[in-house]
Formats: sequence, structure tokens, C-alpha cells
Amino acid sequence: MSKVKEEFSSKNGRQTGAKNDVLMPLRHTAEHILHMAMQELYPSLKKVMGPPIEDGFYFDFDLDEKISTDDFVKIEKRMQEIIAANLPIKLIQSSPKETKEIFKDNPYKLEWLREIQDRGEKVTLYETGEKGGKHYDLDLCAGPHVKSTGEVKAFKLLSVAGAYWKGDEKNKMLQRIYGTAFKSKVDLESYVEAIEQKKANDHRELNKILDIFTTSELVGKGLVMYTPNGTIIRNELRDHLLKICKKYGALEVDIPHMAKIDLYKISGHAEKFKDELFKVVSHYDEEFVLKPVNCPHHTQIYASKPRSYRDLPLAYVESTQQHRDEKPGAMVGLNRARSFEIDDGHTFCTPEQIKGEAIKIIKIMTEFYEVFGMWGKHWVSLSFKDPKTPEKYIGSEEGWETAQKMLLEINDELNLKGKVMIGEAALYGPKIDIMLKDALGNDRQLGTVQIDFAMPARFGLVYTDNSGQEKTPVMLHRAILGSYHRFISYLMESLGGAFPVWLSPTQVNIIPITEKHLDYAQKIETLMKEKNIRVKTDNRNETMQAKIRDAQMQKIPYMLIVGDREVQNNEVSVRLRTGEDLKAKPIAEVIAKIENTYLTKSLNLW
Amino acid sequence: MSKVKEEFSSKNGRQTGAKNDVLMPLRHTAEHILHMAMQELYPSLKKVMGPPIEDGFYFDFDLDEKISTDDFVKIEKRMQEIIAANLPIKLIQSSPKETKEIFKDNPYKLEWLREIQDRGEKVTLYETGEKGGKHYDLDLCAGPHVKSTGEVKAFKLLSVAGAYWKGDEKNKMLQRIYGTAFKSKVDLESYVEAIEQKKANDHRELNKILDIFTTSELVGKGLVMYTPNGTIIRNELRDHLLKICKKYGALEVDIPHMAKIDLYKISGHAEKFKDELFKVVSHYDEEFVLKPVNCPHHTQIYASKPRSYRDLPLAYVESTQQHRDEKPGAMVGLNRARSFEIDDGHTFCTPEQIKGEAIKIIKIMTEFYEVFGMWGKHWVSLSFKDPKTPEKYIGSEEGWETAQKMLLEINDELNLKGKVMIGEAALYGPKIDIMLKDALGNDRQLGTVQIDFAMPARFGLVYTDNSGQEKTPVMLHRAILGSYHRFISYLMESLGGAFPVWLSPTQVNIIPITEKHLDYAQKIETLMKEKNIRVKTDNRNETMQAKIRDAQMQKIPYMLIVGDREVQNNEVSVRLRTGEDLKAKPIAEVIAKIENTYLTKSLNLW
Repeated sequence: MSKVKEEFSSKNGRQTGAKNDVLMPLRHTAEHILHMAMQELYPSLKKVMGPPIEDGFYFDFDLDEKISTDDFVKIEKRMQEIIAANLPIKLIQSSPKETKEIFKDNPYKLEWLREIQDRGEKVTLYETGEKGGKHYDLDLCAGPHVKSTGEVKAFKLLSVAGAYWKGDEKNKMLQRIYGTAFKSKVDLESYVEAIEQKKANDHRELNKILDIFTTSELVGKGLVMYTPNGTIIRNELRDHLLKICKKYGALEVDIPHMAKIDLYKISGHAEKFKDELFKVVSHYDEEFVLKPVNCPHHTQIYASKPRSYRDLPLAYVESTQQHRDEKPGAMVGLNRARSFEIDDGHTFCTPEQIKGEAIKIIKIMTEFYEVFGMWGKHWVSLSFKDPKTPEKYIGSEEGWETAQKMLLEINDELNLKGKVMIGEAALYGPKIDIMLKDALGNDRQLGTVQIDFAMPARFGLVYTDNSGQEKTPVMLHRAILGSYHRFISYLMESLGGAFPVWLSPTQVNIIPITEKHLDYAQKIETLMKEKNIRVKTDNRNETMQAKIRDAQMQKIPYMLIVGDREVQNNEVSVRLRTGEDLKAKPIAEVIAKIENTYLTKSLNLW
Repeated sequence: MSKVKEEFSSKNGRQTGAKNDVLMPLRHTAEHILHMAMQELYPSLKKVMGPPIEDGFYFDFDLDEKISTDDFVKIEKRMQEIIAANLPIKLIQSSPKETKEIFKDNPYKLEWLREIQDRGEKVTLYETGEKGGKHYDLDLCAGPHVKSTGEVKAFKLLSVAGAYWKGDEKNKMLQRIYGTAFKSKVDLESYVEAIEQKKANDHRELNKILDIFTTSELVGKGLVMYTPNGTIIRNELRDHLLKICKKYGALEVDIPHMAKIDLYKISGHAEKFKDELFKVVSHYDEEFVLKPVNCPHHTQIYASKPRSYRDLPLAYVESTQQHRDEKPGAMVGLNRARSFEIDDGHTFCTPEQIKGEAIKIIKIMTEFYEVFGMWGKHWVSLSFKDPKTPEKYIGSEEGWETAQKMLLEINDELNLKGKVMIGEAALYGPKIDIMLKDALGNDRQLGTVQIDFAMPARFGLVYTDNSGQEKTPVMLHRAILGSYHRFISYLMESLGGAFPVWLSPTQVNIIPITEKHLDYAQKIETLMKEKNIRVKTDNRNETMQAKIRDAQMQKIPYMLIVGDREVQNNEVSVRLRTGEDLKAKPIAEVIAKIENTYLTKSLNLW
């Protein structure tokens, strides 16, 4: 499996539907009000552009003075004045010559104008207010807008950021203010609340408390290190996954992180990923790259021995790092990184075995995701080739047809109710993608199976069939979990950090009420460690309440409080991270319950 | 821990003692006989050089015709003639001018001559035979030699290879013949037998049968891929090791494979490894390298949070890949690779905790190596700084003294009987190295503990002590297993491929005598798989004898033969890979025995 990340981004890309939004004219006008206010407050400002977007609008401008959120009060106040003035907004046709004269001091607008002319489009301006009035603006703009500024009843400025002119890093860095507008104050407030919640639930925010991963300026952007907590979660996920894969006959392999560029020239990835490849420079004369995908290495393990039809299917799996040379500005915590581990796998099989092997892979996904309660909430994408862009694919027309037909059959056989998605295929073949709509309404790819008739032939892979003939095997690419980084970030965000017991880095905090209960606490700690339960004793010099609060913040599933009464009765008092107080219970019962919850990977705490 | 490989190579380097060898003059003369024979057979040949070496001699020559071992019969025959002629060998002093004239057609000898003159040394020639005689040679040579060619009673040509002039890849590729000579035919024969045994036991030879790893020209030299068999061995080793480490409080972490060069500028490794660093080229403006060591990344995990004395010791461990840009010609199977996984670990502690932590690490080594029966056969190197080469080390004089004193104390306390080895310290501090002499008499490093006062300060690491003061922690670098590649190669070679049961990729082969016993075989296979035993049923259309022979070749510990009698009595007939036949036994007994052998990591089969 090669393109976990790409799939995510292309699927997410389809979410934007700003142009159709009924709020669009309102938000567009809100942006005009913003740039009017700013021009009044900062006369040297050069306005650049200001479109409505999915959830609001933004305004890019060129200004020496650096704007911060502290300035928002002042700017919003001026915007309110413009709204209160209820200025009319009018469309004006303009000649290019006239327009050029109007914007003669603004090189950005002049460039827009040239582009409009190049496209042979009409030049339109929008005028707000009356020329000579207190507030007045004339802007090069395609609209539409609402009729007057007074219609903007509820707006808010949200954030400020840097943005390159035309998104190109070679251009000047401008400033950008994001804002939003709604028809009513109620709508605005509920939106603001939602984004505040989203921000608090951002995995980078949660990480400040949970301590799952870290990055360092010295190591470099997008190069994430797992702390001990994160490593526990990764290992539990990996072990769970590999155990299921092995049950279905998969064989674990292990490959290095680089290869000669020649390997990817053959596979087609050198061309496909040319802008994302990290070159590795040797003192000697070979040309290496960091691996962007793992399939070509796996073909070389296949090719290391003569293979017969009796050896097939051969399903290689492993969890290994891939590398992409992302833009330094594009990195977002675990969600976009330069180096990320994926659970990858490639099955080499005969054409007759394809369907059975693909079904096995979908069963692995089912088992894996059922543990998280995610299975059943998914939808299935039958990701097919776009016949209009043949240059994006390798392999023969015939191979593609056969593979797509097979996926449709599997879809019917397993009653997957898949939707055919044209243009979502991989480089080398069509896919079945298991998709989940997450809490934020974004599609997440849970797993993928891809049929590939092309790559085995490119690498000259063969097997001897039962009549002694050399045949080319078929290759299935598959991922179950995808990127560990992204999956962990998804779990963090969707659970607000409250991992199920089996994934919780610390499962139990023992809280002795005073120092004299420490021995008893440590006795319980030892008993629990014998059952491989991840337990800590909080022996800090803090109150019981503070210790409970900290453990709850850290989403530790169980707090076992021990004081005089517990010592006397050989009990512990159980508190859950949900705040529930289960009162005193016998030690043996508590240990058995927690161990069972861990081993069964239950989502319930008690 | 940073320098596992280096330690190996520097320790191995000390083995060569050719100059002191009593066989040296004899072997040197054998080489002269070789080059005389070759010059007679190949008149266009230009002789280059021919020294005696540890186990024999070699001869480098420049010749268009490619020599192969097929030519050895002819060459050895001519050598025999020269020996039979019993030609006298004489030392001749020569003037540079005369010598230049003699070798005017041989640019290699002329270059040697210039170098001899540059060093201000006397020019000496050795003459073999009489000028004008049937066999005659005059060579630029420092000697010594035996008196006449007749003294060479027992010699053999061994192999032919390419060799660059002066070992420099930029120079012309020459041809090299290796040979050896002994005082008696008996000595020669026993030597030849030993090297044949050694060759058969070479892990690359064994790998052809055991299928542990593979390499591919397309992936590149020195980039080893583990097959499913190798991955099982690696995983078992890793799990065994991490379990012990965690018992002693270590925390597993996980880091990416690259970092900005700045990280290693601070640590000092950029300078130390400058010829072995792989640069990673991004499309953007940061300079990256593949990590040659892991300590700097671990300092950044430490630095990701404020730390107090209560948090220490913090022992981070992980198994991760390191990279070295080795010469393309230097790669040898698993023993020298460009990318290799090591079990690395760094403990951050207070100065008071050093000794206790170092002792814990030595206990981990003891537990780990006892399982292999290696502990007790080791010797301990107290690897100290060489005061004569201060430029090879970082850190303060005072830190070094304290650390070396501490290692001496630990040595006494644990009665390690260590030998002080001057000049064997790491870049940043002295070490305790646990060494083992292997079957070939070479020293192998089993594990290492290194005390480092320097690096934490370079990275500005701190902790708050119990009086609220900021202090610099001490760092212990340690490896228990070292490089997985090298350790696996060592196990392969020292055990001739016969891994203990817990490491054997396939532990049990079930051999049904005929097809009708297949169901019974598969029933047993299922029972064993429930116990996580790695079992296969050999259902090939081969005789029982052939199946047993193949399983023995593959060093599969147990063969369970099932025929009519076994089916009838609910038994299996047990054969061991040693050839031992344990006869029929009840299924339950056999499964319990094998499971127990696996779980206890016993070295015995029964």
C-alpha cells in the first residue's frame, strides 16, 4: 500500500463546497467590510484578495505593521460602524483602462486585472457606500454580495496568519485575517463554541497533557518522536494488528529505509513522487532515496528465491517508516509528517487467488476495527480509474478492466454496498477503500485493498504454475490501519484523549491517602505488574483530591485510592476517569476486572 | 550507544600480526614464485605488489586477460617447476638510478621506488635464479625471504579477486590472487580444511539454505532485507531483550531515521562521522542526514518536558536503524551494512545514580546472555581514553577522571575482573565492554555501558534537584545485543545455523508418510498453533526420507512423522535435527515438551 496520505488529502479536498454555500454573499460582504475597516485604520495597507471560504472568509493584505489578534477589538469596532451605516453595495462594469487607473498604486490588483483580461473575462467592480462618504470602497471583485452592509448581523474575526502571494513560497509573505459571518448571532455563537471545542480536542493540545509525542527544532519539522507513552500505544496497535494478520496467514518481513533510485524508476514512483522524494547522497557513486513506499522492496524479497504456485499466496506485512519531503510549513503534529510509519502489506498470488485474498484482507479490517467500535459506521469506496486521465496510471487496459470487475464482484459477495468513485484509483490499480466519516464530518480512510497487475511484471516477478510454465503473479497492496501517526491522532481527537484501557499508557494510578499507606500501595502495584497491568503509584506530596484531578486530566482509566479502611479490609476504592466512584472493592476482584478489560480490549471501563 | 560497529572493527583490527609470523619469509618467497610463474605464463603482465599476510600471501597484478580459479592448475604447475629448480634467492642493494632503469616499463614499481626515496630508505632488490637461466626474477622488495625456492614445500592458491591500486577506488582495478604456504603438507591440509569449514559456516553460505535475509542489486549494496524467517528471529530477540530491559525500569521510545545536521554538530558526531554520513537532500532549505547514532534524538525526548530529580533515572531504550555510508566494496552480508538495527538505550540520571544504573545494565546483559550460554565465557574491557590523543574526545578532563574512577569501582564491586584498554573509549566517555572470543578467535563485543558527562551539557539538558537548583544530568549510553545483523550472523555462524528452539523460524515439521495421513498431520498442526508453536506440515509429493533430510538441512529442531501406527495410537514419531530418533510418543507429551522448550528458551531439544 502506498498512498495512504494522498488518499486522505484528496478525499478531504472534496469537502470544500464554499461556492455553493448560501452564506457566501454574506461572508463575501463581511470581508469587504473588513478590508474597508482596515484601510481606514491602516492607510498604507495594500489589499490583495479576500474570498469567502467554507466556514467564513479571509482577507490577505500587504502591510509593514504586523497585525495581531490584539488588534481585532479595534478592527471589529470599525467594522460595526460600517455595518451600522448600512451602506449600499453595487456592481459596476468597468473598462480595463479605467480599472488600471483606479488601482495604479496596487500591484496585486493590477496583476489580477491582467489575469482577468488574459482569460477574456469582463472586469467587474463592487462599490460600497457613496464616493466622498465617510466610508467608501471600490474593489475589483466578481461578487456576489448582499445588498447592503447592514445585512451583516453576526460576524467575528478569528485568527491571523502569514500567507504567500498566490500561495507560492517564492513570493512575498503577506498577512491574512480569518473571520466568519452568520445570519444570526445564535448561529455564530454555536460555531465559535464548536471551533473552540475542536481546538481543545486538537491532538496537539491534548498532547500537552497526555505526552504521546514530541518534536524538536534540532531534529527538524515533521520528524515526530514517540515518548514512552506514545510508544506503548503504537506497540499495542501494532501487536493487535499483526496478530490478526498472522492468523490469516500473513508473514512479517523487515526492510531498510532507503534504496537506489533505480528501484523506484522501475516501479514508477520516482516519477509519481518526484517532488516528495528525499534524495540520499552517498560519498560513492550510487544514487539513493528514502523510501516513499514499500512495495518495491517487497517485490525484491519475493524475487530472492524461485517461487512455485505451491508457495502462493505469499502475504508480506510489516509496520515501517515512509518518507515524504513535505513543505516546512505544511507539517501538522501527527497528521502531516516527513517520516511516518504505516502498516503495509503486499500479497503475491495467482489470478485465481485474488478474490479469496482480498476477502481475507477485508476480514482482517473487520476484526481490527470492531475492537474500536468503528466497523459498521464505515462506507465503502470502489476507487476506480478515471478514463479521462490515463497518464496518471500504469499497466494495461485489460488488467484494469479485470481488476475493477473483480472488485465489483467482491463488493457484491461481501455485500459491501460500495460506491464507485471515479479517479480515486492508485497508480497501479483500482482499490476498495473502507472510509469513515469522523466527528468533524471528514472522510477518513480506514483501510484499503488494491489490485495490481502492473508492478509484478515491471519487476519481472514470476512463479512456476502447475504445468511448469512461468507466470506473472498478481500483487495486492493493502493497509489496515494506515499511518500510525494519523490513526493515533484520530483516536486522540475522537476520544478526547480517553483511550480504551488496552491503549492507555498508564492504566491504573494508585493513590495512597497519606505516606503511611505507601507500602500497601506498592504491594498492590506489584500484584498488578505481575498481570502486566501498567500501573503507577502517585507518591507525590499532594492531596488526594489533587492526585485524582491530575489522573483524570491525564485520562488514566482507573484510580485506586488506599487509606486506613482499605488497608484494614484488603480493599481499594475505585474511581474511574469518568468521575464515577465505585467505592471500596476487594483487591482480587479489582485486579481481575482490570486485567480482563485489558485482555479483551473492551471499550468499557467497568 | 553509538559505536558498536567501530568497536568491532577496531578490536578485530588488532588481530593481524603478519609481520611477526615465523612463516612470513616462506610465504613471501611463495609469492615471488607465484609472480615468476605468472610472468612466464602471461608475458604482458605487470607485477604490482605481493606481501605476506596473516594467513598466507597475495599478489596484485595488472593484466588485460581475466584470471579465474580455472587457471590455478596451470599456474601451480609452473610454480612447482620453479620450486623443483631450487633457485637461490639473493638480496641486492641497488642505486635508485639503476632500479629506475630496470623497472622503466612498470609504472607501479616506479611509484614504489619514488616512495622509498621519499622516505629516505635504501633501495633493495631480491634476485631469484641466475640471470639468463630458465627461471629468473628481479623484484623491488624489502624481504625477508628463505634461501631458495626449494624450501617452499607446501603451498596452495586459494582465490582471485579485484583490488584497487593502493586500495583507492579512484585508481585502476587490478587483479589479486590469494594463496598460502606452510612448512609441511599436513599443516597446509589442516588449514585448507579449516577454511573450507569456515566458508561452509559463513552466514552467507548458511543463508542460502536458511533463508534469513536477502539483498538486491536494485535496492543497493549493504541494505539488507529480512525475509519472514529473519523477521521471526529479530522479533524474538527484540522481545526477549525489551522484556528484560522493562523489568529493570526502562521505557521504550521510538524515533525517526533522520534529523537536521545541526543535531549532530552539537553532539560532535557530524565531525566524528563526516566520512560515513548519508546526507538527505530536501527540496526546501534544511540540511538533513540519516542518523548515524541515536543519542542526540533521545536527548530531545528528555528535553521535551521540564524534569525534576523525582523523574530520574529515565532510561530510554529502543531497537532502531542506524546508517553508515560504507564503501560499496566493503559490505559483507549481515556483518557490514549501510543500514543496521541496534538495540540502543540512554539513561539520564543524577551523578549519585550512575553506579546503580550501570550495575542494572550489567544485570540486563547477564540475564540476556545467560539464555545463550554465553555469559561466563566473556571478558571485560575497561575501555579508557588515550591521553596521547585528546583530540579524539569531547568533554572535560574532570568528567573523564570521575567516570573512569567510577567504572573501576563498578568493576571491583561486581568482581568483573576487567582489563584496562587504553584508547578504546567512546567519543564522549569511558566504557565497560563485555567481550567474547568467538569460534574464530575474534573478539566480539556483547554489550557496553558508557558514562557521558559531556553530551547532556552540550544539549543544555537540566533537571531540578531537591533544593530547586538546575543541574545537568549524566547520560549512560548502553547496548546489550548491539547490532541485530551482527548478532544474528554470529549466532548463525557459531551454531552452524542450528538456532535454539525459541529462535528457530520453523520449530516443527510434521511429515505425513502418505497423503492419507495429511488430515491427522493437520489436526496436530492446529493443536500446536494453539500453543503458538511455529509448525508446518510438509505436504510435498516427496519420500519421507527426502522430507527428513530437507528439514535437517534447514535445521528445523523437530520432525514429527505420522503414519498408520501413529494415527492409530494418537502418537507422533519424533526425530530431532541432530539425527536422534526418539520414536513414537503421545501427542500431548510432545506438544507440552516443545512448548516448554520454547517458553523457557532452553538450549536443549529434549
